[in-house]
Amino acid sequence: MNNYYYLLVGGDKRQEYLYNSLLRKNKSVEKIFLNDNYDINENLNKISKANVIVLPIPSSTDGTTLFAPLYNQKIPLNSIIEEINKNAILFTGGENNLFTSCKAKRIVNLLSNEAMTLKNAMATAEATLEIIINNTNHTIFNSNILITGYGRIAKILTEYLLALKANVFVCARRELSRTEAELTGAKAFGFNKLIELLPGFNIIINTVPMLILGEKELKNVDSNALIIDLASKPGGVDFSAANTLKIKTMHALSLPGKYSPKTASEFIETVINNTLI
Amino acid sequence: MNNYYYLLVGGDKRQEYLYNSLLRKNKSVEKIFLNDNYDINENLNKISKANVIVLPIPSSTDGTTLFAPLYNQKIPLNSIIEEINKNAILFTGGENNLFTSCKAKRIVNLLSNEAMTLKNAMATAEATLEIIINNTNHTIFNSNILITGYGRIAKILTEYLLALKANVFVCARRELSRTEAELTGAKAFGFNKLIELLPGFNIIINTVPMLILGEKELKNVDSNALIIDLASKPGGVDFSAANTLKIKTMHALSLPGKYSPKTASEFIETVINNTLI
Amino acid sequence: MNNYYYLLVGGDKRQEYLYNSLLRKNKSVEKIFLNDNYDINENLNKISKANVIVLPIPSSTDGTTLFAPLYNQKIPLNSIIEEINKNAILFTGGENNLFTSCKAKRIVNLLSNEAMTLKNAMATAEATLEIIINNTNHTIFNSNILITGYGRIAKILTEYLLALKANVFVCARRELSRTEAELTGAKAFGFNKLIELLPGFNIIINTVPMLILGEKELKNVDSNALIIDLASKPGGVDFSAANTLKIKTMHALSLPGKYSPKTASEFIETVINNTLI
Amino acid sequence: MNNYYYLLVGGDKRQEYLYNSLLRKNKSVEKIFLNDNYDINENLNKISKANVIVLPIPSSTDGTTLFAPLYNQKIPLNSIIEEINKNAILFTGGENNLFTSCKAKRIVNLLSNEAMTLKNAMATAEATLEIIINNTNHTIFNSNILITGYGRIAKILTEYLLALKANVFVCARRELSRTEAELTGAKAFGFNKLIELLPGFNIIINTVPMLILGEKELKNVDSNALIIDLASKPGGVDFSAANTLKIKTMHALSLPGKYSPKTASEFIETVINNTLI
Repeated sequence: MNNYYYLLVGGDKRQEYLYNSLLRKNKSVEKIFLNDNYDINENLNKISKANVIVLPIPSSTDGTTLFAPLYNQKIPLNSIIEEINKNAILFTGGENNLFTSCKAKRIVNLLSNEAMTLKNAMATAEATLEIIINNTNHTIFNSNILITGYGRIAKILTEYLLALKANVFVCARRELSRTEAELTGAKAFGFNKLIELLPGFNIIINTVPMLILGEKELKNVDSNALIIDLASKPGGVDFSAANTLKIKTMHALSLPGKYSPKTASEFIETVINNTLI
Repeated sequence: MNNYYYLLVGGDKRQEYLYNSLLRKNKSVEKIFLNDNYDINENLNKISKANVIVLPIPSSTDGTTLFAPLYNQKIPLNSIIEEINKNAILFTGGENNLFTSCKAKRIVNLLSNEAMTLKNAMATAEATLEIIINNTNHTIFNSNILITGYGRIAKILTEYLLALKANVFVCARRELSRTEAELTGAKAFGFNKLIELLPGFNIIINTVPMLILGEKELKNVDSNALIIDLASKPGGVDFSAANTLKIKTMHALSLPGKYSPKTASEFIETVINNTLI
Repeated sequence: MNNYYYLLVGGDKRQEYLYNSLLRKNKSVEKIFLNDNYDINENLNKISKANVIVLPIPSSTDGTTLFAPLYNQKIPLNSIIEEINKNAILFTGGENNLFTSCKAKRIVNLLSNEAMTLKNAMATAEATLEIIINNTNHTIFNSNILITGYGRIAKILTEYLLALKANVFVCARRELSRTEAELTGAKAFGFNKLIELLPGFNIIINTVPMLILGEKELKNVDSNALIIDLASKPGGVDFSAANTLKIKTMHALSLPGKYSPKTASEFIETVINNTLI
Repeated sequence: MNNYYYLLVGGDKRQEYLYNSLLRKNKSVEKIFLNDNYDINENLNKISKANVIVLPIPSSTDGTTLFAPLYNQKIPLNSIIEEINKNAILFTGGENNLFTSCKAKRIVNLLSNEAMTLKNAMATAEATLEIIINNTNHTIFNSNILITGYGRIAKILTEYLLALKANVFVCARRELSRTEAELTGAKAFGFNKLIELLPGFNIIINTVPMLILGEKELKNVDSNALIIDLASKPGGVDFSAANTLKIKTMHALSLPGKYSPKTASEFIETVINNTLI
């Protein structure tokens, strides 16, 4: 019953670490479209034989081709999906209409696993510390840091920045979120006060996937401030306006995969293991 | 009486930030041997006119020439010191026998200021977080981290790493240090147990300015571990042995100047201001 | 428009502090059935004249009479409600069928305010520290503490106990809750492991309003352990079994009102103010 | 060689816990002048036979008689000391001239053990939290708390109060202490600003064994504030002036013995064990 043959398809270093980890546990595992030299057809042929297929996180950045940044060609997601056999379990990194035609007996969206998402939020918060320290000329200690939004990532980041003795301010819409932030030791305010308070911040971190820092807001940002946008594309910052205003911005995405791929692969492996038992 | 003419001599970005800060406060200030184009004699001539002279931290790395990494020539410390007039106050970054011949009415070693040293320890601890996150493939969360020594930097670093939920172990000679470490939530042990416990650590941070990790110890270090040596040269690690064993090492020095030069320059300015009043 | 006449009805010290606070702000305010000497009818007569009526938290402990522990008689809730006029705003501490017959133009259940509930959770967590320190012969530092459930109070309490360097274990049903707990630095496990792990704890704090520690579980509890039940009546502990087994238990309820009535009254005042504007 | 016969003399619950702990480890141990019923001479006779004698902490509160609060008579320290034989090791809780006449081959002052003193500071800080929560009508969260002095206890207490999100202010003489406090996230100032800032505090905790809060200072303290003096007698507060001004004060001493006697006895046992090996 534990007779699984794992096939890891595309992706980045996280797939590499996952591959090595499964190998160390004597699992039958192969990786394709990662950094191998086989041609596309040779790789596609392997898919029909696997019963655990792991697509990367995200499975696709354009909706139609596989996310395979280390492979030298574009692979249509379609061509992968149609090879999957009816006894297979498919793990995906996100939703996609193309998956509906898949014959797999079970499809598990890794990103719908809340515990994994929370752990990735922690890894993202850690990586954000690195970005801050590396891109400012001052310490986090005593910095005036604004976090817009108060979801999973923002909460952990708030806690970490407070531990490093920053002055942390949270701008959030809901009273409950603001109260939560205040109970951690941060200051909190609503979006109605954003423009007025913006000039006081050295570091601004957006986590809201909506335009939060448009041209009007950016004009109130200190020209020496650093803006880090953690929200998925298109993000919450008018980057071209920021560019014109010469404000330093960074759109920092997929941080766990970049900064802690080994840990991120362990999070994925945990979901896979919990699903297969 | 506040009729000071400041001259900042050599150094790195910290002097640059100090210069800008004094300028903003309408002080008479000049910088030489920093990144200017004047020739040596033109610069030396300015020294005799200044009554507050600020050498960099460190003032010299070889004991005889000025620390001036952004200037294109070597300047003998001697040639600077003999220009200093008897009404001047000289701030130095460290001790040096050459200073004894200086005519200045007062010589203040910035590095002997304990409050500044402590603040630099904080900036060093923060920068060390960056180095860890940037040079490992896993999160600090849940890592097994060893810190050897338990002085100023180690204490703050322990606190920061615990806040990021690492498993922190402190190896220290004195029972009191170990107890202090334990009260922060770390585990602690003596050097007699170092070799035995070394294999369990992902990250090893040395703060002791003595050979702590020699060949014998390094053979017990996990080959995937990262060793960061924060101790001043020659440090506490046998780097050539580590190299042979293919263990990743970093000798990370002068971190405040590299990672938070603006903040570090404010620490220096505070000492200068407290001295001049 | 700010022409409010506040009437505070019954309750404990929180109403007293609320009364004093409103008085200091020159509001028209009276308190009845608190610790006054007027007779019931005299007090009831005042109700029809008030346009802001504040019942205590909880408004009733038995469902039919007013919660008025400092008053010498039982007052039927009914008799209060029928006096309330149609222009009044009524603040209640919980739901009750009797309120449906109330003519007030608006009824606000204070306990449905999530921000206030969260702030009370913090006050409860703080008070729980006091109970622990006061009822054990050892420090929180290094204690093995179990928290069952992982809601609002449990989360803040976990954070506080970790800050005091306890070894905190969270027993929670949902994987997400356990992951959340682990990310704070606690250990976490499911209820299937509860009985097995129970003997290792010095202090057990229940927050689940269901029977969690029945006779079977209690037999596995160390006889020197302290059990604190924070769940509302009947709580999550078989107190009579615990008594037979000579395990020290405390059913600790309404802690904000007992330990920080002034702060708790400010939480209530904030809700009232936000409602009335 | 491990042939020790322990005699615990006088003291409080800590000696009781120490006795039980040694008994559980099958040590030869007796306790006298604790809460026994034997007469004085019967007890004194036992002393000459013991080779490990443990006096309480403190050994005496008046300098001449044994600290034995649970025993019904006063015992001169002298009468104990002269019974001690020349092969014995004597553990004392403090220094006393009377010990110089003791024939014991070794005298160890428990209070000179820095690691133990530090652990007791932690236990004291924890107990102080209890005192605060129990003696105020508001939460520690958001309170304005002043700590005067910044020694061992003050440092741990500062950390704990910051973890509970109080606004912590440290008044300390040395710049280094103030910097240390600031690096933990507290605010700090010198004694020259004490009088001016005093009115802003809800809670004032003194740790300096010198008169810090005299009549002049107390006149600037908020009448609702709580003053806790942790400094050993006579403490740092003019208690009679505070009484006249109706300011609530508490002189809180020997907290580990009162709040966590079991843990405190383990600290003592650790010193004894480390000495005897």
